[in-house]
Parts: sequence; structure tokens; C-alpha cells
Amino acid sequence: MQLYSFFNSSTSYRVRIALALKGLASDYHRVNLRTGEQRQPQHRELSPIGGVPVLVGDDGVSLTQSLAIIDYLDALYPQVPLLPSAPLLRARVLEAAQLVACDIHPLNNVRVLGYLQRELGVRAEDKDRWYAHWVAEGLAALEALLQRHGDGPFCFGATPTLADCCLVPQVANAARMGCDLQAYPKVMAVYQHCQAQAAFQQAAPERQPDFIQ
Amino acid sequence: MQLYSFFNSSTSYRVRIALALKGLASDYHRVNLRTGEQRQPQHRELSPIGGVPVLVGDDGVSLTQSLAIIDYLDALYPQVPLLPSAPLLRARVLEAAQLVACDIHPLNNVRVLGYLQRELGVRAEDKDRWYAHWVAEGLAALEALLQRHGDGPFCFGATPTLADCCLVPQVANAARMGCDLQAYPKVMAVYQHCQAQAAFQQAAPERQPDFIQ
Repeated sequence: MQLYSFFNSSTSYRVRIALALKGLASDYHRVNLRTGEQRQPQHRELSPIGGVPVLVGDDGVSLTQSLAIIDYLDALYPQVPLLPSAPLLRARVLEAAQLVACDIHPLNNVRVLGYLQRELGVRAEDKDRWYAHWVAEGLAALEALLQRHGDGPFCFGATPTLADCCLVPQVANAARMGCDLQAYPKVMAVYQHCQAQAAFQQAAPERQPDFIQ
Repeated sequence: MQLYSFFNSSTSYRVRIALALKGLASDYHRVNLRTGEQRQPQHRELSPIGGVPVLVGDDGVSLTQSLAIIDYLDALYPQVPLLPSAPLLRARVLEAAQLVACDIHPLNNVRVLGYLQRELGVRAEDKDRWYAHWVAEGLAALEALLQRHGDGPFCFGATPTLADCCLVPQVANAARMGCDLQAYPKVMAVYQHCQAQAAFQQAAPERQPDFIQ
């Protein structure tokens, strides 16, 4: 398999966690989001929206969208299933994952922050406030969901799921941006538990071949 | 079932389409996004992030996030399945749905547009440009995906899927905001085909009890 990724892309990080949990190897292709490689025509062939991750399977299938990729991996490589089959548990996993994927991350990714500064002339401190605002609103909601339905040490029980694949990169990103994370004890307990696992460590930005300090 | 919805919320509209396609009845509870009902403590009990839709099932289960709700409905009411089981077709459906749900809609919903104006002082014309920018980028990518993998008259074949549940509200929203949609012929052909179906008509904003001109 071929994985098109950038070391500190949260969505790439989700897929790297899923691959590592399933023990699947892939060739790593860097798409440098800082120099705009994602917008080159060559990359648009793989990802029309100009994003990462893209997974190209051994079957030649090329797929975008991290949550679609992880669902596909779960179908093809059912070892360490990341999407439970029991409907209610599955719904809780998807609810938490979609909260991160739809209500937090899209507002804070590189193309959006770039547009705010470049096109709307938003000052750096207002951009940081924007970032912190959506993180705070989203992580408070994630904390509430986990308080109600979560059952550690992972988001939902004793084994990792898609929800953990989404939580970890989002928290890591927020920590890197200096957000105060004290108000989310359950989120942070899950994060710390995950970070102690080999698969999550292997998927971390600083372990990728394109890592830059 | 109880559906908490607002007539012109795209994410509520997705779930209304799924319910209508499956022939499922629900009691409609308006959450008026214009007057801020979604941020009231009473509603936060149902939706910690303060959003719609929320589905409360006959089993008392309360669930947020439109894509998690539709997946749950598919598990409980498998008539008119909206998520194919064949892995590659399923992946294409999820890829298109997530493109809308992660890369277009979150940037243009009411809380984000409100923040731009209220907190960042963005002028009305720049807010409209922001809206149009993410719609254009996202629909161009959706068009490319459908050109490559789509096989009408619905997004992926002869029956509707989750991808159609996402495409229709997004296109309706963009049309209402006056975006030029000529550049997306395949997207628009799917949209028009869907709009001719009774279930999609039944789910439309103007058919909801809280519709305001």
C-alpha cells in the first residue's frame, strides 16, 4: 500500500494510527503541505480537493477522506476492528469520530487558517483565538460525550476504535498550538492511555520520515 | 422517534432524507438556529456541541452527528440500505459523503459565519466570498469524484445512498446562497434526479413544519 501523508496532518495521523493498529505496512509518500505540494496537478490526480491522506491499495484503488479510508481498511483487514458491529456502540464511536472530523478539525486545518490570513487579513492573534475557540467548543462536547457514554481506558472500552484514531491527533494538535486542555479530564485520560501504546507511538508525527522540528 | 431539526439546517436535511427514504415516521421538534435555541442548556443536554440534528429513538437512545445517525438508522432499519456492503462501493459512498461533511459544510454553517462577522468583523461581502470559495473548491472535487467513479442516476448507481443524502442539502444550500453551479454538471444531474423523488421532496426545507419564507 502507498500512503500519501504529511507528518503533522491530523487526518493523515488518523490513518497512520489505523494502519499501525492493524499491523499493516505502507510506503510513505510525503506531500508537503507547507510548500503547497497538495495543490499541484499531480497530487490533484490523487486527491481532487488537494488534501492528504490518500491511500492507494495493493489493488490499485485510490481513496481519499480519512474516515472512508479507515472504514475501507476495516472491511479489507478485519484484524483489530476499529468499527464495532453492535449498533449502539458503533453509533457512539461514529458520533465521537464525526464530532472531531466535522466540528473541530475542518475549521483549523492549514487551508482554512491560510485563507483567514491571506484573503481576510485576519491578524495572527485573531487566528489563534479562532483556533482555540473551535477546539474549546469541540473538546468540551467530546468530554461530555465521553462522560456520558465512554468507558475507558480507550474512548469506548478496552480496545481502540475509530474514535481514538480521531481523538489523539486532535488533542496532539491542540497541545502543539498551546491550548489549555485541563477542562477535559476524560479526553486527556484517553489521550494519555493511547500515547502509551506502541501503535499510537509509531503513528506519531515525530516518527514519520518527513518530520521537521 | 423524535427528530430535533431546523428546516434549513443541511445536516438535519440529510437525516430527514434518510428517514423519508426508509419510510420512517418521526415527531418533529424545531430547534430555531436563528434565535439561538441550539445553545440553550436544555438543548445542550441533547447535543453537547449545541447543534442539530438530534435523533431520539423509540429505545430512548439520543444520538447526534448526522452521519452517525444515518449509519445507526441503517443498522436498525435495513430497508432501503444507504450504506452498501461491498467494500469498494461503500468506500466511494463514504468518500463523497465525507467530502461534503468535512470539507464543505463545516466551513459554512451558521455558527462559523456568525463567528466571522461577530468576532472577526468580517464584512458581509467577504463572508459571502468565503462561503462561495469553500463551496466552489468542494463541489469541484465532488464533481471530479463523480466523474471518475459515479454511475448515475444517483451518485453511485440506481439507488440512493448516504452520498445523495449529503449532496442534495449541500447543493440546495449553495443554490440558495446564489453560487454558480454550472461547472458541476454531474453533481447537478444527480441533484435534479434526487429532487424528482418523493422522499427527497418530503425532506425539503419548505415542507417542514418550521419553514419560514
